[in-house]
Amino acid sequence: MDKELIYLDHAAATPMDARVLAVMQPYFSDCFYNPSSPYEPAVKVRNDYDKAKHSLAVSIGAKPGEIIMTAGATESINLAFNGINGHVVVANIEHHAVLNCAKRCVHTIIESDERGFISAEAVKSAIKPETQLVSVALANNELGTVQPLREIAQVVKSEREARLIRGDKTPIYLHSDASQGVGQLDINVARLGVDMLTLNSGKIYGPKQVGLLWLASHVRLQPLIVGGGQERGFRSGTENVAGVIGFAKALELVVEHRKHETERLAELRDGLQQFLTEAFPKTIISGHSRHRLAGHLHISFPGLDGERLIFLLEDKGVLVSTGSACAANKGTRSHVLTAIGLSPAVADGSIRITLGHLSTTENIKRAGEIIADVIRREYQRVSK
Amino acid sequence: MDKELIYLDHAAATPMDARVLAVMQPYFSDCFYNPSSPYEPAVKVRNDYDKAKHSLAVSIGAKPGEIIMTAGATESINLAFNGINGHVVVANIEHHAVLNCAKRCVHTIIESDERGFISAEAVKSAIKPETQLVSVALANNELGTVQPLREIAQVVKSEREARLIRGDKTPIYLHSDASQGVGQLDINVARLGVDMLTLNSGKIYGPKQVGLLWLASHVRLQPLIVGGGQERGFRSGTENVAGVIGFAKALELVVEHRKHETERLAELRDGLQQFLTEAFPKTIISGHSRHRLAGHLHISFPGLDGERLIFLLEDKGVLVSTGSACAANKGTRSHVLTAIGLSPAVADGSIRITLGHLSTTENIKRAGEIIADVIRREYQRVSK
Repeated sequence: MDKELIYLDHAAATPMDARVLAVMQPYFSDCFYNPSSPYEPAVKVRNDYDKAKHSLAVSIGAKPGEIIMTAGATESINLAFNGINGHVVVANIEHHAVLNCAKRCVHTIIESDERGFISAEAVKSAIKPETQLVSVALANNELGTVQPLREIAQVVKSEREARLIRGDKTPIYLHSDASQGVGQLDINVARLGVDMLTLNSGKIYGPKQVGLLWLASHVRLQPLIVGGGQERGFRSGTENVAGVIGFAKALELVVEHRKHETERLAELRDGLQQFLTEAFPKTIISGHSRHRLAGHLHISFPGLDGERLIFLLEDKGVLVSTGSACAANKGTRSHVLTAIGLSPAVADGSIRITLGHLSTTENIKRAGEIIADVIRREYQRVSK
Repeated sequence: MDKELIYLDHAAATPMDARVLAVMQPYFSDCFYNPSSPYEPAVKVRNDYDKAKHSLAVSIGAKPGEIIMTAGATESINLAFNGINGHVVVANIEHHAVLNCAKRCVHTIIESDERGFISAEAVKSAIKPETQLVSVALANNELGTVQPLREIAQVVKSEREARLIRGDKTPIYLHSDASQGVGQLDINVARLGVDMLTLNSGKIYGPKQVGLLWLASHVRLQPLIVGGGQERGFRSGTENVAGVIGFAKALELVVEHRKHETERLAELRDGLQQFLTEAFPKTIISGHSRHRLAGHLHISFPGLDGERLIFLLEDKGVLVSTGSACAANKGTRSHVLTAIGLSPAVADGSIRITLGHLSTTENIKRAGEIIADVIRREYQRVSK
């Protein structure tokens, strides 16, 4: 990456950590064997693969046998929804992967509040006797708002117990896509209280197109991809040995450094937020003021054009986005900003700044000055 | 890989070519951007990704817009079957991925002949008015038998034209999994006459868990994985930029060297086959005598135990398999060998030898001597 650039879009993609790439290297051309082959060098590869799955399991407080490796969060989410033949509950600020999966089922879409917060009460009132799945992301990818998953888990658990008492065998599961929260939040599955958890390697300085779906032992799923029977029959296809080993290392690293890194990013983000809100009093910060990812800053400059700001900032070496990078958001207003009730004039003047490993005290200070300068010129331009 | 080892299982896995890894390297930690992000460095990544897809398309004589990138052949096959709501025709020697996809539909399983050859006549007689898909692998992964795809394509085309004439709008497609034939056969989609083609990077010295599904413009499919709308909505998920760029390079390389490499492998294989059949006259070679992949040698030593042979050979540094490496084949007799009518005594004494880049005149000669020595001792042991 160009040293001159200040990358502030860590929620869209992260550079692979050199330590991650280092542990992957042997599996490209030397230990290349098919882990299902019978001879010793292949058995060693199988063992290394299993060790990586064990490490992934340990990082989330689960058992290795409960993890299904996938080609990323989108596939994991699709797998979590597969085989659900009842009603599902999702929120209007979820990622398109969740929303599009929900559309394939009978569904209820609940509303978040103006902070992008999904209350346990809203989930509770949407659950019907035939509800089989509730899917709530651990943290929203645009706003950084962290959801009250434990409270939502309690609601799902109560419903499950009520069904048990009345002899109703309809299952109900809570799935959470934790792609955006992994580096900064507790992701112990028991403490979160979820039944299924999606993780994504590409967002935590690991290889892209590697992910996992954790499922509690009581969850009954249908495989999305059938074939040779890998991943206990839940996800066939020759294993991505290098990718899974890299993912395990990436997760170990972010879990190990979580506390320090979260504090560091929150301090940098808060400083940048304070600087910009003081410079531009009309600025609107979206997302929950307390329950928000440390590196996220969603900021709106009413009356300005966010897409134009992105290109002006890029011209000065600062890379930010207007929101989610996925193809579904090309040239349209973010469904998340509409969902939290931002007026078009505010929504259209928004940028998403997400800090991460490439953020330093120096480059965040410099980014603040560049952003302020660009915003000032833009306000001058539009006021003419 | 240990220099002492003689790897004869190229059909199970291949080491990544150093030239492939070299073109991938920049995309791990430097050009790591999300190709859907709006700023210039990400646009460059998008362009590089598109160029790789263009190269993949050129290698098979197709248009880039007709290619959907996947996480490997198994996913491609599942995608090819997705959205088919009529009858499907497959053969009894197909890979488990195809057989298990077919089981999800109303299906007819046709029989191959004793060489593992699927005749166009057998396909023709299995097609019903409601048949929507015929799926035939370009070459069988255990026997190496190459199928008469052009003739089968003609049958499918005739059926399509007959439906057109009688005003029947039921579509019928021919899909082929070409995972095993790419390095050695013509894979021009127009010349093959297929409507859908599956390719796999991991079998051609490219990265694992990268594949593609090519589909002709008239094919109507349902996405298997929904979300952010990548791959024209047919396969969502942040793109595997490094993987796709590596796959494109791997395909370029095998296509470029196909003629020479095929001749080289056929000569080595034929020499090995002759040596072993002369040494052990009871030996049975399976697969088609003419239409067979150059690197494949499926050989049975009646009365011996193939699984035991694998471990004895490994002990002498020769790595072979009993057949497909996939998890579905663990500890059970190959469905392919049953399908071609091998008696249990013959099937159980089989090994699959597959040559490739790691094969040399010297190590194949040495492998032949080691195999002959092991077989001789085993026949002595069992005759006592």
